[in-house]
Amino acid sequence: MKLVQKGLILSKVRVGPFSVSLDGFGAGPRQDINNPLGVRGFELHGWFQNTEVFNKMHGQSGGRRGIDNDWAAQSFENVGAFILGRNMFGPIRGSWKDDSWKGWWGDNPPYHMPVFVLTHHARPTIRMEGGTTFHFVTDGADSALRRAKEAAQGKDVGIGGGVSVIRQYLIADQIDEMHLAFPPVFMGEGENLFSGINLHQLGFTPVKTVTGENAMHVLLRKR
Amino acid sequence: MKLVQKGLILSKVRVGPFSVSLDGFGAGPRQDINNPLGVRGFELHGWFQNTEVFNKMHGQSGGRRGIDNDWAAQSFENVGAFILGRNMFGPIRGSWKDDSWKGWWGDNPPYHMPVFVLTHHARPTIRMEGGTTFHFVTDGADSALRRAKEAAQGKDVGIGGGVSVIRQYLIADQIDEMHLAFPPVFMGEGENLFSGINLHQLGFTPVKTVTGENAMHVLLRKR
Repeated sequence: MKLVQKGLILSKVRVGPFSVSLDGFGAGPRQDINNPLGVRGFELHGWFQNTEVFNKMHGQSGGRRGIDNDWAAQSFENVGAFILGRNMFGPIRGSWKDDSWKGWWGDNPPYHMPVFVLTHHARPTIRMEGGTTFHFVTDGADSALRRAKEAAQGKDVGIGGGVSVIRQYLIADQIDEMHLAFPPVFMGEGENLFSGINLHQLGFTPVKTVTGENAMHVLLRKR
Repeated sequence: MKLVQKGLILSKVRVGPFSVSLDGFGAGPRQDINNPLGVRGFELHGWFQNTEVFNKMHGQSGGRRGIDNDWAAQSFENVGAFILGRNMFGPIRGSWKDDSWKGWWGDNPPYHMPVFVLTHHARPTIRMEGGTTFHFVTDGADSALRRAKEAAQGKDVGIGGGVSVIRQYLIADQIDEMHLAFPPVFMGEGENLFSGINLHQLGFTPVKTVTGENAMHVLLRKR
């Protein structure tokens, strides 16, 4: 009990790695089964694909090393639970017609830890291979954060996205740290991360900026 | 006559170097006499200040060399005339109360070429030291572009800003090339360059991306 309380105090709520186009979009428009990240959304994630970290999360060995890979590794380090928006979990809108959809990632999703999915539609918890458990939270973002903190057992909580979930936690002033990755991409349309969000006013300041092989990485922390 | 016509065909219309924060702002909010680039706007231009190119434009010798400086040099290369919005020229709104305001830059402005200032309020041309001439154009952006192309004598026309002028020429599909510089800055508010502008749809693609000492530089061209 004491350990959990310590965890509640010391653990951080972190975003990242989260990719944003240079014109501010964290996903493309018109997400569907064939475009999990929206149209052209895959261009945002080229820097991460096939890195060693990416491959390891997906049960593969090998992969690119370097700055992009190092930043990806740091972003996942010490994260004990994730929160995802419902569209990050799947393309289905409205109520679940059955329990067949189990995420974009197949039987062994890349999280390997408890994942809390924000949704308006209740569903039983799903235990996947490789340690990922999907919990469906229907009583709001605060509740998801409380449950994720508890599940993280003193480690940090990762806000995995999408854009609307990150914006929700930003506006609620519940995020401590963000790792944003900016590939040289202009989406033009899609899910805008920054529209109406004043990171400076929210107290964030870029504390570290490094350019990797395929993206510029910025670490923001609360002042 | 033939040469001018050749110029009209071959010369490009180029934006840059133009600084944009990672959340899309090309200037801070609340521009006034003490904040020519809006509040915190100076943070956008740190990469350019005190480079050798910057110093030379301002009649000083020495200055930082390196990638940032090289990109600044390339951006001004072969530009024969500039177009500026009225707020890039000064903080005065409405009609000119007299002819005393001659730009933010003192007697010897950094342009050293013809500069066309878009305004609704007529004013006689001002010839400054060092070759800068300010022409005030009251019959619209098209007219300014025609006059600037003629004045550039076959060289390129530089769209110097601010944000609203660049947006205007982008929407009119009159820009061929943009050099955007992204320093690791989050303005949070101010003049947003990208809001409602779909560079991808307008046909722009990033053809070169290099990270300098204090900003990431992206060159965009029409496909």
